[in-house]
Amino acid sequence: MTTNTKPILVRFDPLSAFIATALERAGLPAADADKIANLMAEADLQGSDGHGVIRLPQYVRRIRAGGINTRPNIRVVKERAAMAVVDGDNGMGHLVMSHAVDLAMAKARSAGVAWVGARASNHAGPASLYVRKPIENNMIALYFAVGNANHLPPWGGMEMLLSTNPIAVGLPAGSEPAVVLDMATTVAAYGKVKAKAKRGEQMPEGWMIDRQGKPLLDPQRAGEGFLVPIGGHKGYGLALIVGLLAGTLNGAAMGREVIDFNHDHVTPTNTGQSVLVIDLAAFAEPEMFKAAVDHLVRDLRGSERLPGVERIWLPGEQSHHRRQQYAAEGIPLSAGQVSELTTLAHELGIAPLV
Amino acid sequence: MTTNTKPILVRFDPLSAFIATALERAGLPAADADKIANLMAEADLQGSDGHGVIRLPQYVRRIRAGGINTRPNIRVVKERAAMAVVDGDNGMGHLVMSHAVDLAMAKARSAGVAWVGARASNHAGPASLYVRKPIENNMIALYFAVGNANHLPPWGGMEMLLSTNPIAVGLPAGSEPAVVLDMATTVAAYGKVKAKAKRGEQMPEGWMIDRQGKPLLDPQRAGEGFLVPIGGHKGYGLALIVGLLAGTLNGAAMGREVIDFNHDHVTPTNTGQSVLVIDLAAFAEPEMFKAAVDHLVRDLRGSERLPGVERIWLPGEQSHHRRQQYAAEGIPLSAGQVSELTTLAHELGIAPLV
Repeated sequence: MTTNTKPILVRFDPLSAFIATALERAGLPAADADKIANLMAEADLQGSDGHGVIRLPQYVRRIRAGGINTRPNIRVVKERAAMAVVDGDNGMGHLVMSHAVDLAMAKARSAGVAWVGARASNHAGPASLYVRKPIENNMIALYFAVGNANHLPPWGGMEMLLSTNPIAVGLPAGSEPAVVLDMATTVAAYGKVKAKAKRGEQMPEGWMIDRQGKPLLDPQRAGEGFLVPIGGHKGYGLALIVGLLAGTLNGAAMGREVIDFNHDHVTPTNTGQSVLVIDLAAFAEPEMFKAAVDHLVRDLRGSERLPGVERIWLPGEQSHHRRQQYAAEGIPLSAGQVSELTTLAHELGIAPLV
Repeated sequence: MTTNTKPILVRFDPLSAFIATALERAGLPAADADKIANLMAEADLQGSDGHGVIRLPQYVRRIRAGGINTRPNIRVVKERAAMAVVDGDNGMGHLVMSHAVDLAMAKARSAGVAWVGARASNHAGPASLYVRKPIENNMIALYFAVGNANHLPPWGGMEMLLSTNPIAVGLPAGSEPAVVLDMATTVAAYGKVKAKAKRGEQMPEGWMIDRQGKPLLDPQRAGEGFLVPIGGHKGYGLALIVGLLAGTLNGAAMGREVIDFNHDHVTPTNTGQSVLVIDLAAFAEPEMFKAAVDHLVRDLRGSERLPGVERIWLPGEQSHHRRQQYAAEGIPLSAGQVSELTTLAHELGIAPLV
């Protein structure tokens, strides 16, 4: 089962414990390390495998290089009944955004709706991670983030001044899984390009263009081109708007100010994120809303399909199924990932994951 | 200048006055007719020509058929510090959404952020129409609407259970035009398909698919296929989320409940729209935010372009230029449109527009 080609299955608890130990050894307080580890393992559990434990070596490198404040004073710097701006004091993004979501939920419970933005934050994992708690509390959440590296030029341009700024929206359902959209504003994420390159495959037309504006199909030449936004100028517009709402509005980095955290481990990123929370109870009986969502979900799922289509999926449904499967069977990690984590464990002087 | 092929140029004031007279003659109170006419002419002025005076004959038909309440009691049915639900009482959508935006602005001024949703509303014109007033008051606005006809199946499906539910977002700038994104969640709007058919041209691949899931290029065969959402499953997800936030959350129509108002002039549409307003002053000095937007806009506009690209545009910039041009030279209406409005004027016994 644990050959080099087959994935290695790891349970949530030992994965979370390993991450916590690594982060604590790197210099974080134990309680903070636990909180972050839990969110990172959650990311792997829901199949957001580009944003879970795979980021651990990078986070550790950044913490040890002094690029993260391990004792941040995360605090509210602006506040009204339905909004706040949180200064993350260059702490780990997971801590800053957990704080922001809790605050937004508390404010939404009285004001009905609340928006909390963060500045001086950092990479916080997959966007959908932060809509889960509101969903469990009969709330809707919208999350906007400035990505931590610019991969996208403006429409018609060649300078990568924008990130693939993601959006997540989560809405609770009744007996159906919650509706959760988590999307980058480009047709394909950069990770998908790298995966194609690894497998020696060509990319489909529409993922990337080259410096002539022509389709770029060879993923080995990805460095010579750019990602394509969804719907052309529309996706460019979305990436820009998300960046303004999550970055500029909060006094966080946007455009040329964005630090590429894959290559710079020291400069504070001043990452910006924003979350909007809507309390269902302010609008109607939450059970009524959730029953209406169930009804709609079933209408869509049960509707006539194109030839060859086996099933119509709802946003977040595949991730929901994956989560159930991984909780029962374990989270699959590639042999390469495990070996990287073993190297990290040796460096930190902690027990390896497997 | 006014041959059958060249557009006829009409000034804002006489256009707005003509619309107001027509609406009043159809049965609306004079003050309401004026308010709606002003918004409709604004739509034409900014070049949203699918949502301005072109809709007048349809609105009049609906009003005269009893499909619109001409004396609505537009009222707040749910309210907290940062939210409200407005029942439009089946009044004209322009009145309902003007009410909703004013309320959201008043609430945002104290709570910092406010969300107002509407039910029992109607078609209200282009989405971007309702972000203008917040922008002029140093506020950001996000607008979500359920479209008034279903043209979009779920991804992988063939039943058109979703509309091309639009999103508009407007953010004020300093000396640059405001950043305004106004987009449907499909690659091409249905109006563009009709225009291609009229000109006898083929559609590019990616606009529509047929019932086999294959690209549909002949716009004459549009009835045999479906619009394609931006980014495939992503645009489907966006259309669904917008519908849930603007429709389901407000107790308005969504999915199968949506009335096709092009073919049914009598059944109340129970249209839903939502607006979120953010007061810049709650976050920082508005002038600082606007200067940052100016700076970003200039970075993007001035960045290196792909070969053959003359200019990098910002969202809303083309519409801003069009507005200035139309204000100076007049709003172009096609001879066909003018003749339709002349017919309408005869029916209503009012003076024709030109």
